[in-house]
Amino acid sequence: MSLFAPQSVRSNLFDRDQSNVDPDDILQRSWNRVDEAEQKVQAFTCLSNKTHSAAQGPLAGIAVGVKDIFDTHDLPTAYGSEIYQDNQPKVDAAIVAMLRSKGASIIGKTTTTEFAFFKPTKTKNPNNLDYSPGGSSAGSAAAVAAGMVTAAIGTQTGGSMVRPAAFCGVAGFKPSYRILPTTGMKYFAQSLDTAGTFAKSVADVATFTSLLTDRDLEIEELNPSDIRIGIYKNDILSEASDDMIAAFKQAAKAAETAGFKLVNLDEPAELKTAHELHSTIQCFEAAQALGPEFARYPDLLSDKIKEAINEGMAITPAEYDNARRSAKNARRKTHSLYDDVDVILTPSAPGAAPKGFATTGVATFNKLWTLMGSPCVNIPAFRDGNNMPLGIQAVGKFGRDKQTLSIAHALQATFEKSA
Amino acid sequence: MSLFAPQSVRSNLFDRDQSNVDPDDILQRSWNRVDEAEQKVQAFTCLSNKTHSAAQGPLAGIAVGVKDIFDTHDLPTAYGSEIYQDNQPKVDAAIVAMLRSKGASIIGKTTTTEFAFFKPTKTKNPNNLDYSPGGSSAGSAAAVAAGMVTAAIGTQTGGSMVRPAAFCGVAGFKPSYRILPTTGMKYFAQSLDTAGTFAKSVADVATFTSLLTDRDLEIEELNPSDIRIGIYKNDILSEASDDMIAAFKQAAKAAETAGFKLVNLDEPAELKTAHELHSTIQCFEAAQALGPEFARYPDLLSDKIKEAINEGMAITPAEYDNARRSAKNARRKTHSLYDDVDVILTPSAPGAAPKGFATTGVATFNKLWTLMGSPCVNIPAFRDGNNMPLGIQAVGKFGRDKQTLSIAHALQATFEKSA
Repeated sequence: MSLFAPQSVRSNLFDRDQSNVDPDDILQRSWNRVDEAEQKVQAFTCLSNKTHSAAQGPLAGIAVGVKDIFDTHDLPTAYGSEIYQDNQPKVDAAIVAMLRSKGASIIGKTTTTEFAFFKPTKTKNPNNLDYSPGGSSAGSAAAVAAGMVTAAIGTQTGGSMVRPAAFCGVAGFKPSYRILPTTGMKYFAQSLDTAGTFAKSVADVATFTSLLTDRDLEIEELNPSDIRIGIYKNDILSEASDDMIAAFKQAAKAAETAGFKLVNLDEPAELKTAHELHSTIQCFEAAQALGPEFARYPDLLSDKIKEAINEGMAITPAEYDNARRSAKNARRKTHSLYDDVDVILTPSAPGAAPKGFATTGVATFNKLWTLMGSPCVNIPAFRDGNNMPLGIQAVGKFGRDKQTLSIAHALQATFEKSA
Repeated sequence: MSLFAPQSVRSNLFDRDQSNVDPDDILQRSWNRVDEAEQKVQAFTCLSNKTHSAAQGPLAGIAVGVKDIFDTHDLPTAYGSEIYQDNQPKVDAAIVAMLRSKGASIIGKTTTTEFAFFKPTKTKNPNNLDYSPGGSSAGSAAAVAAGMVTAAIGTQTGGSMVRPAAFCGVAGFKPSYRILPTTGMKYFAQSLDTAGTFAKSVADVATFTSLLTDRDLEIEELNPSDIRIGIYKNDILSEASDDMIAAFKQAAKAAETAGFKLVNLDEPAELKTAHELHSTIQCFEAAQALGPEFARYPDLLSDKIKEAINEGMAITPAEYDNARRSAKNARRKTHSLYDDVDVILTPSAPGAAPKGFATTGVATFNKLWTLMGSPCVNIPAFRDGNNMPLGIQAVGKFGRDKQTLSIAHALQATFEKSA
């Protein structure tokens, strides 16, 4: 059974440009879709009061889901953890206050894996309810895919935005590090934790993030012949499924046919090293960030997260410092790659969503870029033999979020034509 | 009236090396000193239960004060704000859990200015109760100066550790960015907020921080003739008092006499620019971090903090991004300064503590280095005509915290001989 939203439900962000559209009507459409889909998809941990009318502002009428890793003053916030089942924050997270100030309607908190790590949530993939939506931003990606919200907020420490976006067939945008504020989120690994946005298309995600932040991130028209696309080749490509390899080749071919310049990029040694050191930084910081929970409530933590904390506690400060130094070197190297390309293309994940709910998948294709602080966009376009989405990831230069989104948008149109 | 602790009270950290010392006795000494001094100094927002005996671990018996900007599961946490007067966190901040795991006794929460910004606390300077202890880590510096705790935890976003350490005549150590975890603190400007430590001497602060973090930060013996000291010259020196200028000259002369090599450093243009852009980054991030409080509880915020938030809200994302880029350039330039010097010396503040309690002083001499992420140490040694402490700041290369502490320790001995 598919609850993937039909096109008519997806486009409510751009509907707002039509002056005769009432924000309350747009908001009501999202609530109607919640009535249709939520019981099956289970994207939310809790919903707000349906009787609230739309607020004022550039995001008036836009229904938004916020990952339950962010504090909300009016909705309980559990961080996906049994420890926080009764937790009611006093104030919002910074990004939640930003949403409200722009007139968005936060219609609910979306599910997160435990502390945004790997323990699966109750959420189902709207494309096929027998499949995982991915994680950790499971509910945010699924709520957008099902058309229950126009946009959603998530976070990524490894691949927690790009992966669920890919699995659910929506656009996911992990901006450059610190473009969106993270204060008021429950941190896992603070030098990696990055807030981001989901919407149905790359264009929608760009518009939504622009309106939210007052940043100019709107799509600009590009001439494909001006754009150099780096086709990134590294060892982990061997972990991709046949369907993904085929989609990745199709993506490259479609881009070339459309006039984009393709550049083959072999993974530099510095980036291979950084990829391997992501978990050193993540686990060391997680052991500190969740050390308090580990000390007080060990029985309320999953084995998987205790394993990561124990791993982090065994890492010496010298090993952590060395990993930070390697990451810094790799960032410098990454920077220089963009002398030859405008965007780097990789698979968003090794394949389509896993069947069943034992795992949310892996962050293999994402964690390097999170560590680099690079803007990453999941481009939804392709599907595998089971009609499950396959995502292609565009990775831009740090700080070039607008350009990255613009190229990703052009590529989305190109891929869709070829798909 | 001076409640500055006599030498006999100061040295309890190193007493522990004597195998016949009982941790409970050391802890009791701190409590005795609390009985003598706290009513006058008012360094604490709340105290823990005096009947707790010392825990196990490398910091057993060590009384520690924790700035009330960090969450504690067993003591109320108000962040210096009226908004949080009834706030009782569920778990500790990461650094608090670290303290406990090492056996330290957290005997109380120390006062902080409102959200670690500028609104003065009730705390008095132990050297003379008519003077400000500085801020924002007012209570932490004063509690150490009065000998009520062996060590204390603070934070610095501009000059909130080095300044109060200087005013109170104790050692303050703001490590390289992200050496100490900040999760579970109330953020003001997250890319600047840095946790640090206070103790009576540079040697004590190094020992304490080593034992706390399992990092090798212990003082190593140095040959002065191997050490190059940069005497930093910039426009803001004109803001220093005559007493401070004299102390700074005396410091340079004492170092030279002791055999250190002096190198004159004129402030590079990149660093002058970064100094000026600190407040752009600070206010932009503060407007996001405290946006939720500003939206919900404007009447419970001071005018000063509302002014900073309003200023931050008027800064465009493009201005913020430009400031970040300038800071990055300046960090690269700062890095290169250490080709010629091992440590940079500047005044810790424009002069001694202000008389009265209208202001906690200014961060003029500190904020550049916080933005650079550099390790900074206040070296207590000199006093002005009113017998109030004057601090000299040692600024090391990013990541060279051990070397910075070792040089600062050698300089402290040198300055004390000359004072």
